[in-house]
Amino acid sequence: MANQVQHPYVPRDLHLPGYVPCFLSQSEIVTPFLGSSLLLVVLIWFISGRFHKISKLDRLLMCWWAFTGLTHMILEGYFAFSPEFYKEKTSFFLAEVWKEYSKGDSRYAGRDSAVVTVEAVTAVIEGPACLLVIYAIARKKAYSYTLQLAICLGQLYGCLVYFITAFLEGDNFSTSPFYYWVYYIGANCWWVLIPSLIAIRSWKKINAAFQSERKTKTR
Amino acid sequence: MANQVQHPYVPRDLHLPGYVPCFLSQSEIVTPFLGSSLLLVVLIWFISGRFHKISKLDRLLMCWWAFTGLTHMILEGYFAFSPEFYKEKTSFFLAEVWKEYSKGDSRYAGRDSAVVTVEAVTAVIEGPACLLVIYAIARKKAYSYTLQLAICLGQLYGCLVYFITAFLEGDNFSTSPFYYWVYYIGANCWWVLIPSLIAIRSWKKINAAFQSERKTKTR
Repeated sequence: MANQVQHPYVPRDLHLPGYVPCFLSQSEIVTPFLGSSLLLVVLIWFISGRFHKISKLDRLLMCWWAFTGLTHMILEGYFAFSPEFYKEKTSFFLAEVWKEYSKGDSRYAGRDSAVVTVEAVTAVIEGPACLLVIYAIARKKAYSYTLQLAICLGQLYGCLVYFITAFLEGDNFSTSPFYYWVYYIGANCWWVLIPSLIAIRSWKKINAAFQSERKTKTR
Repeated sequence: MANQVQHPYVPRDLHLPGYVPCFLSQSEIVTPFLGSSLLLVVLIWFISGRFHKISKLDRLLMCWWAFTGLTHMILEGYFAFSPEFYKEKTSFFLAEVWKEYSKGDSRYAGRDSAVVTVEAVTAVIEGPACLLVIYAIARKKAYSYTLQLAICLGQLYGCLVYFITAFLEGDNFSTSPFYYWVYYIGANCWWVLIPSLIAIRSWKKINAAFQSERKTKTR
């Protein structure tokens, strides 16, 4: 077809009829994302400072949960339920994000079922749960650490599925090593690192609660 | 090829060069599995009865964790690391199990990467963790409920990936409605139902521990 625009993704034989290229440059996509994320973090940091007796670490965690929760719900939620984002004819920001990110992992444009599944679970279940954590920390709910542990384990399981399926299918979905390391590895490694740290902390807090309960009972 | 044996799986165009049919009948595969599982459960029930102060519910849970842990490690572990099980020329039991189960979900014989990933995570991480739960319950470890919650959430996430990826790919991997309902739904629904129940119980137990800890602190 004469009108068919070539997509930039790898593998080159990926079939994307009706593909429309990015309208925005890389920096026009990344800057608003990082900028609004930073704004959100600053906002949550100051609002949480008005609550009494919330430690600085918990305030930092509230910032993270707000950032990751909204990323899950808005960015990943859009992807999960927009199978034709690569055909988007306007510079609609969320479509641009995934057109750009697909250079790091073409399974997004190619609608790989494992990727769609992980993103849908993340957006629908984990996203709202992240926002609930913010409330749970602010109100010092008993389920705060349990919920944090549960979400972190979900995020880690999602990353395992995400990376292992790519590995099993030949790990050849990046346009170039730059996109591989910056998008595929660089953007995702935070969702391995930070959930691991929070999961370990939550695990320890829960164990401490059981040890305290036991002491109470044996008094 | 004249020597190529037709496989019984759906979709019919699934390419399985070197396929060797089942040697055992359905009952010759299912009976030893259910029989040895029952033997294991009876064994764990009586051994756990010799420990003091373990409730009947906890003893029942120990039976479940032994059954599910060994199923994960042996049955699912074999599958995860045996890409060519469908070529097995002997009546080796574990290969027979997966040749037979593939009638309910041909993605096993077809080596679908999402299925292999979920099975590998289940076998390598969750399997040993299930056996650790038995020890944790017997020794009344503080981490007992946390570990149970973590494994149950992993099992549930695995089931979500398992079922949603099949749905997204057209849900057409069963030889017949019989195999669909008995193998694909029937065999897996227990790993949705039971982990859900144990997760809810663990969640409540952890919350109770935090509430008890709070009372101690505010005394």
